[in-house]
Amino acid sequence: MRIVAALGGNALLRRGETPDAGVQLSHVIEAVEALAPLADEHELVITHGNGPQVGMLAVESAADPALSVPYPMDVLGAQTQGMIGYWLTRELRNARPGRRIVALITETLVRADDPAFGNPTKFVGRLYTVEEARHLTATRAWAMREDGAAWRRVVPSPEPQDILELPAITLLLASGWIVIAAGGGGVPVTSNGRTAQSHGADAVVDKDLTAALLAERLNADALLLLTDVPGVIVGFGTPQARPLGPTTPAQLRSLHLAEGSMGPKADAACRFVEHRPDALAAIGTLTDAAALLTGHTGTVIRSGTASVEPAGSTDT
Amino acid sequence: MRIVAALGGNALLRRGETPDAGVQLSHVIEAVEALAPLADEHELVITHGNGPQVGMLAVESAADPALSVPYPMDVLGAQTQGMIGYWLTRELRNARPGRRIVALITETLVRADDPAFGNPTKFVGRLYTVEEARHLTATRAWAMREDGAAWRRVVPSPEPQDILELPAITLLLASGWIVIAAGGGGVPVTSNGRTAQSHGADAVVDKDLTAALLAERLNADALLLLTDVPGVIVGFGTPQARPLGPTTPAQLRSLHLAEGSMGPKADAACRFVEHRPDALAAIGTLTDAAALLTGHTGTVIRSGTASVEPAGSTDT
Repeated sequence: MRIVAALGGNALLRRGETPDAGVQLSHVIEAVEALAPLADEHELVITHGNGPQVGMLAVESAADPALSVPYPMDVLGAQTQGMIGYWLTRELRNARPGRRIVALITETLVRADDPAFGNPTKFVGRLYTVEEARHLTATRAWAMREDGAAWRRVVPSPEPQDILELPAITLLLASGWIVIAAGGGGVPVTSNGRTAQSHGADAVVDKDLTAALLAERLNADALLLLTDVPGVIVGFGTPQARPLGPTTPAQLRSLHLAEGSMGPKADAACRFVEHRPDALAAIGTLTDAAALLTGHTGTVIRSGTASVEPAGSTDT
Repeated sequence: MRIVAALGGNALLRRGETPDAGVQLSHVIEAVEALAPLADEHELVITHGNGPQVGMLAVESAADPALSVPYPMDVLGAQTQGMIGYWLTRELRNARPGRRIVALITETLVRADDPAFGNPTKFVGRLYTVEEARHLTATRAWAMREDGAAWRRVVPSPEPQDILELPAITLLLASGWIVIAAGGGGVPVTSNGRTAQSHGADAVVDKDLTAALLAERLNADALLLLTDVPGVIVGFGTPQARPLGPTTPAQLRSLHLAEGSMGPKADAACRFVEHRPDALAAIGTLTDAAALLTGHTGTVIRSGTASVEPAGSTDT
């Protein structure tokens, strides 16, 4: 099988943890323990989130007195691809010394007229008071939104249209490499159709939507969206809350999952399966990566699977 | 021909310039104007320095109150590979829309017992007063050295032993890609021979020495070390100062060029030509990249070339 595995950004840095390199590296090693067995039996592309990492670099850049203007999000996203791609490459090699592994800097094409540019929604960086938020809007023209009791910067999250390094990913994958690509959803670039010139976009792309596009374009057999919960939860926050087992895109879309948390994962899974009816998408815990493939755990999404059952109750 | 072109770190950010992304991007575009014509006729691998960039990220990381310890140099170096690799990829594609271009995260193997780890010599980051330098040594255990009238942090610069992503570079290059690799000399990792486990090194590798190793291992025909001076200067600082034209490794080594400026470039050029007697190395101005190949300008180093003449006086 050909598998695209998407690692949540929070898998490398959890809420409340000190964002030291050593803390993130310990999580990289945990992630590699779950991912390396997949590569023993399958073609594997690994992609990863970068929310906590790019937020941290954005805060550092904004605080750097040497700069007259902070680095834009495309540049900071590329920095996180370098850092996380390096960690994953090194630790995968440590786990599988005989394997060939490579991380590619990957750009994701987005539309310059994507409505997201007029409606920034993706939180980045730290929390601010309302006074700080007002000051940042006035001095930096940052869009700010309430996040719980505090305020945070929001940036646009346009739709991924194409993955520019796809031919290199394809070549390496077909030649036996484990490929790490499209980190953080890919570095967003816009393209002027007339001049064929591309420019960086001060935005972030949802990494699950990019993973779905990548899996579709690679004709992958499985898309694994790996996170810290055992699957989609039905009735979240109620006494009837339970993990959703095997399902279909139609059933999953009918649940109207919340934006910002499980919504993009469910949307990504549905998109992939709708484009590749013989493939499967699965949402579940990182440590269950191998079991997700066999349908023994997590929320497994296939085109045409009829029943909606709790995880573990069927052997689909 | 197969060419390895090494772009000086200062080519993207000159002394005294504001290190904004826009400033660096304008230099990337200038560099691409000089490099793209090489790719029209030859196989091309581009590597680049990262001195100003990694220094800036190191200062930002050290100032980040969210961290209990700043990021080590390997991680910061990987970040700069992401950023600069992205810029170069995008602007090369803008210059040559039909070409396939890819940037790889690249690790350079160094010896854990390299004497450089006991003798840090490479300046990184900004200038400090002697009082600040003493404080940083006490609080961060940074090694500090005088740099002119001020003090700066120094980090180890071990010798490059191997380039771990070489097979991927080779495959892509042979398949028609322009490959950007080994930025900043590569992310330094050490390897434990017994366990085959590698670890990041809090160090930087000289990008010219890595470029020479990369060119040697790729069986390149030419190594171009591109900087902001027209070649090796003989009698630097004297009224007799003149650019050195065609020369040999033996002659170049006899000049005993200063460490820290032209020394590593000359050493890198000599090492490459000593390993590849039919190849050439050249040191010269970025904008002269194409002319360096024909020997019409710059310091061209070939095994066995006898005469030492000013640049431009011969048509070797």
